[in-house]
Amino acid sequence: MSQGISVPGPTLGVVGGGQLGRMLAEAASPLGVDVIVLDPTPSCPAARVATDQIVADFDDAEAIVRLGERVDALTLEIELADPTGLERAPAPVEPAPSTLAMIKDKLEQMGTFEAAGVPLPPHARVDDADDLRAAIDAFGSPVMLKARTGGYDGRGNVPVREGDDLEAAVEAVGGPAMAERFVDFERELAVIAARGADGVTVHEVTETIHEEEILRETLAPARCEARVAERAQEVARLALEALDGRGVYGIELFEARDGEVLLNEVAPRPHNSGHWTIEGAVTSQFEQHVRAVLGWPLGATDRIHETVVTANLLGDDPRRKARLTGVEAALAAPRAHLHWYGKHEVYRLRKMGHLTVTAGTTDPAGTLDRARELRARLGFATER
Amino acid sequence: MSQGISVPGPTLGVVGGGQLGRMLAEAASPLGVDVIVLDPTPSCPAARVATDQIVADFDDAEAIVRLGERVDALTLEIELADPTGLERAPAPVEPAPSTLAMIKDKLEQMGTFEAAGVPLPPHARVDDADDLRAAIDAFGSPVMLKARTGGYDGRGNVPVREGDDLEAAVEAVGGPAMAERFVDFERELAVIAARGADGVTVHEVTETIHEEEILRETLAPARCEARVAERAQEVARLALEALDGRGVYGIELFEARDGEVLLNEVAPRPHNSGHWTIEGAVTSQFEQHVRAVLGWPLGATDRIHETVVTANLLGDDPRRKARLTGVEAALAAPRAHLHWYGKHEVYRLRKMGHLTVTAGTTDPAGTLDRARELRARLGFATER
Repeated sequence: MSQGISVPGPTLGVVGGGQLGRMLAEAASPLGVDVIVLDPTPSCPAARVATDQIVADFDDAEAIVRLGERVDALTLEIELADPTGLERAPAPVEPAPSTLAMIKDKLEQMGTFEAAGVPLPPHARVDDADDLRAAIDAFGSPVMLKARTGGYDGRGNVPVREGDDLEAAVEAVGGPAMAERFVDFERELAVIAARGADGVTVHEVTETIHEEEILRETLAPARCEARVAERAQEVARLALEALDGRGVYGIELFEARDGEVLLNEVAPRPHNSGHWTIEGAVTSQFEQHVRAVLGWPLGATDRIHETVVTANLLGDDPRRKARLTGVEAALAAPRAHLHWYGKHEVYRLRKMGHLTVTAGTTDPAGTLDRARELRARLGFATER
Repeated sequence: MSQGISVPGPTLGVVGGGQLGRMLAEAASPLGVDVIVLDPTPSCPAARVATDQIVADFDDAEAIVRLGERVDALTLEIELADPTGLERAPAPVEPAPSTLAMIKDKLEQMGTFEAAGVPLPPHARVDDADDLRAAIDAFGSPVMLKARTGGYDGRGNVPVREGDDLEAAVEAVGGPAMAERFVDFERELAVIAARGADGVTVHEVTETIHEEEILRETLAPARCEARVAERAQEVARLALEALDGRGVYGIELFEARDGEVLLNEVAPRPHNSGHWTIEGAVTSQFEQHVRAVLGWPLGATDRIHETVVTANLLGDDPRRKARLTGVEAALAAPRAHLHWYGKHEVYRLRKMGHLTVTAGTTDPAGTLDRARELRARLGFATER
């Protein structure tokens, strides 16, 4: 299957030209793989390093077909691609469009994983206030009410408590929804898993720290027991078995207070929780995604520093031209790495870049402190 | 001096768009630094990842001035840039044009280093056969006859023996020359050194293996005594003191049979002997060059794998379209990294790419064998 690979390799089409597409193009370059991205924003983050950009909306089926005509394989860095376009594009799409559609609907996603024996929080379909009432009765208060589609970085996720206005809650989510038992977790974990032509790989489990449901930091190794870390990788492998098509999957997990590991959700693409692999693993999640989608052998996943922490650089208000200031401390720190995504505008909670800090000793907490201190010295210029 | 650094950073102009420019652009991207290259070959290797390319000859002074108008700082990845263009370009040039001119003339280079107390092989100016005769009498046979300017990858270097036709030898070099005592070396070494706004850094010494005066492989750590490795770094620092201007310098050295370390020559730019730093050091030579040229803080130089070996992928005859075959073994090897430079044509001894192989144990010889085995499975397609 991986016989006769040569470079310059196939050209890869990527729907979406944000930071994931940019880091994908950065990883594709040494491998001799050209990348063409499709994104509505002219000179989007990925365009800087990609071979070319098609400026078009994600739901522009014709444009996706045109992208397919120019590439040997198609993949996505955002879940908004028009399904008809993907179906009609004259290039193989990885992961499989059926997997993308299944993952897009959180209820269907949960159903698929449940059928595959993946441990999940109890959940139920919610079409109206009565369904929500039944869910609270079954799971206890609060429940997590989630939009079935279109949620992103916690948008569309609302905790609902006994006594809340259930009609209003259903209204707020504004469409088909599901309710989940609220998981009282010890910590959140994530695993980058990949399916290639010749097998699967699972990177080491990472601890993720969220606030307002947006990822803030990751720690490798995760500060959980070895047993929990192993279980997290097992759960990731189980989830991968239920997914059709090649590529990298970002698998978010809960470590419940009782030590159980439960699946939270899966993204069919490289994921923010895996940015640590750029400096931290033999093969980054981005290189792994390129390899997987093209059917090339997957790379080794070993961690190469004792500790690897990432800290997201999130935007603030008001919306304005993006300029990150105070960078000298991050540049001067002995083992810090800056990643700037090249977005033109900053606004509150927008992912603008990240810092990776490594350490030669096993010191997740200390390294996290160091990363946060460096981040605290950064800011966004106030000029409009 | 490094107060108030912000990203997106300055735009960097690079004269030369070969593999060094490409890897420079790959390193600049995460830092939010845009790169514009000047190169006569349309869609040259660096153009793939750079923001833009000016298609022009290196000796086109007007084009260099135009490049200078579009960037905040200018640097070079090839020593052929027109000096008038650099002088007139409305952007600071790093390293200093005077340093570039001095290095370009090997005799002047040796004179400068000698005055700075850098240990060198004995050498003499050679304008004619009489000078060459005197050099053989003084240094013994053979001597290394070197073109003073324009030599590259051993081109213009000829060993001359007692009894050779000296007129013909001087003729063959075809211009101002110098002769050097032939160094009976134990091994060749190289050091990547950098001068920034706030100091200097020196990466670990690397062992280099040449054939036909072209670099074939590098090994870190070098297989020399610790005393020799320390001395190599000392000599690199001494050499750096004689160089004016910021940037990375590739410093090639001999470890003589008597254990003495002698300077061979210096390149005022990232160097093939430093490609191991991409996967092998906290800060790669390319990121270090970007930081140095922009006056940003220099990065840490620590090695991050026990062993790091690189093996160059050199072209063969005849000149034809470039396609590297048999890549699957290199992709499947657990700790191998492929770097393809994106050159359109292959010919004998052309640098087409390199492999980096790392190991978690100190095993330079074994890792070198592994890298060579992987390289032996690669080839260039025969189609024209």
